[in-house]
Amino acid sequence: MATIDPNRDLLTVIVSFDVKPGEQEEVFDEIRRFVDDVVRQQPGFVSSALHKSGDGRRILNYAQWESRAAYDAFRTHPRVIEGSRAILSRKPDGREYEVAYAVSADG
Amino acid sequence: MATIDPNRDLLTVIVSFDVKPGEQEEVFDEIRRFVDDVVRQQPGFVSSALHKSGDGRRILNYAQWESRAAYDAFRTHPRVIEGSRAILSRKPDGREYEVAYAVSADG
Repeated sequence: MATIDPNRDLLTVIVSFDVKPGEQEEVFDEIRRFVDDVVRQQPGFVSSALHKSGDGRRILNYAQWESRAAYDAFRTHPRVIEGSRAILSRKPDGREYEVAYAVSADG
Repeated sequence: MATIDPNRDLLTVIVSFDVKPGEQEEVFDEIRRFVDDVVRQQPGFVSSALHKSGDGRRILNYAQWESRAAYDAFRTHPRVIEGSRAILSRKPDGREYEVAYAVSADG
């Protein structure tokens, strides 16, 4: 379970995949396997949450890393490059973020 | 502070705004005011977290609502329609999601 907290100094990486009608489940399974088999074992990995859009046309990965250095080490690791080839061929939109502001109903 | 938990039955709404170079801060302030002045007071609002992309070209709002009914009531409320006119003119990409899978380093 991830927490979104502007006071915690993490790197947030959000990656979205636009999928064709009927392919959301297949792409979801592919990304989940990659997260389980490769990503979660990397040093500095904090969390990953996979989201399915209600319209069936997108998968979004909300991920957190301890630092930019940890994320860069992950991205450039030979096993990761090899293992992510199929996923990258789906042309995801991936971007790095900081949490700048957060409010919740419980204060 | 928000938590991302696939076992919690919430509606997740993720809205992203592509911004021109140099405009990220201005758009961020505009969205933050809307969240503070309007959104957080709606029944069924759970949380909202505003993210700034490191490349300066996007603002992303990760929001949670108790239910689709609560979110729909929010969207169609006259005060919300009035108050969101300027923000909607920025042509955000807004989509509804469910959290389908999550892992974290602490188990």
